[in-house]
Amino acid sequence: MMRQAGRYLPEYRALRAEHDFLDMVYTPALAAEVTVQPVRVLKVDAAILFSDILVVPHAMGMELTIEEGVGPRFHRPLRSAAEIAEITDPFSAGRLDPVLEAVAATGKLLAGEVPLIGFAGAPWTLACYMVEGGGSKHFAKAKRLLARDPDSAHALLARLADASGRFLEQQVRAGADVVQIFDSWAGALGPSDYRTFGLPYLARTVARAKDAGAPVIVFALGAGWALEEIAEATAADVIGIDWHTDAGEARRRLAKYPVAVQGNMDPTWLYASPKEIQRRTDEMLEAFGRDGYIANLGHGILPDTPVPGARAFVNTIRGFEP
Amino acid sequence: MMRQAGRYLPEYRALRAEHDFLDMVYTPALAAEVTVQPVRVLKVDAAILFSDILVVPHAMGMELTIEEGVGPRFHRPLRSAAEIAEITDPFSAGRLDPVLEAVAATGKLLAGEVPLIGFAGAPWTLACYMVEGGGSKHFAKAKRLLARDPDSAHALLARLADASGRFLEQQVRAGADVVQIFDSWAGALGPSDYRTFGLPYLARTVARAKDAGAPVIVFALGAGWALEEIAEATAADVIGIDWHTDAGEARRRLAKYPVAVQGNMDPTWLYASPKEIQRRTDEMLEAFGRDGYIANLGHGILPDTPVPGARAFVNTIRGFEP
Repeated sequence: MMRQAGRYLPEYRALRAEHDFLDMVYTPALAAEVTVQPVRVLKVDAAILFSDILVVPHAMGMELTIEEGVGPRFHRPLRSAAEIAEITDPFSAGRLDPVLEAVAATGKLLAGEVPLIGFAGAPWTLACYMVEGGGSKHFAKAKRLLARDPDSAHALLARLADASGRFLEQQVRAGADVVQIFDSWAGALGPSDYRTFGLPYLARTVARAKDAGAPVIVFALGAGWALEEIAEATAADVIGIDWHTDAGEARRRLAKYPVAVQGNMDPTWLYASPKEIQRRTDEMLEAFGRDGYIANLGHGILPDTPVPGARAFVNTIRGFEP
Repeated sequence: MMRQAGRYLPEYRALRAEHDFLDMVYTPALAAEVTVQPVRVLKVDAAILFSDILVVPHAMGMELTIEEGVGPRFHRPLRSAAEIAEITDPFSAGRLDPVLEAVAATGKLLAGEVPLIGFAGAPWTLACYMVEGGGSKHFAKAKRLLARDPDSAHALLARLADASGRFLEQQVRAGADVVQIFDSWAGALGPSDYRTFGLPYLARTVARAKDAGAPVIVFALGAGWALEEIAEATAADVIGIDWHTDAGEARRRLAKYPVAVQGNMDPTWLYASPKEIQRRTDEMLEAFGRDGYIANLGHGILPDTPVPGARAFVNTIRGFEP
């Protein structure tokens, strides 16, 4: 379910009540514990590392807080070419080592029971947060950078592609079986701009991540128009389909590419009755078909999702007999 | 430029500093004055009524405030079937009359110089605001209503379709030459849900609006996948293309329908230099071609848009020689 661990699980909330979000991310034993919770509670058949895409910019020297209900915040967002030039190498001070240790610790807890998925943010999405300072409706500040100083934008995106790609490579070497790249704000760019500022850097991240040999999943939220271009440009092993895109259409459009698909139920439907969830999940499974398919939500699970809703979704998938 | 009057014009801000937003909407002389500002300042070739889509739910008895930087807020959002049943007929107390008077007053000011565009919200978008209470990232409350109580959702949407349709009809009778329907949150629903909760009520609104004989523009933001279905289901005269959709693709997909198109520059690009704006505007004009086309932005203009940016956009369009 994209990011599985989260506020919807009481087991997670119990731990979270005692610890700051980023402290949990950077404490390998806690991160590993939270990572395996959904495997134990819901019997999902893969674990997704408990972490955050913003650990990379954080390791680049940007002061970060993540508050419940407020979201992530960079206290000094990047607004000028000089500020962009000042960000540091995220690997030089070992600030990402605890995340890699969390990967290793999770591997031990899982003991091969289910695969572990590592992840990182796509360059455009990371740049959005770093320039904007946090979430945003229009990402006007980030996009203003593209309009006014495209050279600085390209420089930032190139650095982020190398950082994310290398970080994914390290996660695989630390024990991740699969890695996923989230381009959560792909939909903030129109086609022409995504081709200029999004796709090339996404492709560069995937290429670097692939050096470690594990399969790569790309999820570009809000860029349903770009499925074919993502398949061609990145050669990703799996493409995540968001809930804005019709399952049958995604299958048709990607039929000629050697790529599996993942998705795509609207997480809002986990608010419905278990019976309605079962009906919709079955519809999704039929529409995607069994081969080269990872059943999943089409966006991250919402924090107030009822556990019985999540359970109905997972159980329907586990019991599916096409 | 979708909503033309707005915070980016100093002439507007000067008036706005002295009046509450909704007071301006409901004072015909002020609304008319603000409506014609962009015609005078930028020489755009149509005027769009200064108003808000939420005047309809407001007239249905829902207490509303609209604050700068905060956005619209319904103080008692609809959360139950009983609350939905309590909303009143928006026409019974004449609460929309000042908006219709603003249409008539604007008609007098314009004196036929350029056409006047009236507008209303699509049922799904109005329902979103009414249930959520304001803007939202996921519209989880509105979508929870669809998941848990679809019958109440359908009842609300049907009432809104009739109300919006009738309001548009009245605007045409008051002097609007064209009307536009904004489905600003179309993108909050996946294809299957939009077909159930969005499109049928949008079509019902258009059908009613068409009774008055003026052309109807439909703009469903974030539903680029649905262009053909919108053309078929609504028989709208013009379909607005948002900036997420490639211009050439929109033209190809709509070629067999008797529909004009409108759009679609990303308003963020009005932050760029006038030269870059000119280049991008020319690209847009070439991509859409001249026939059956209304040059426009692909989303509402942002409040901090520099006036020279808006001017470069308009002037490039006015000077275009294909």
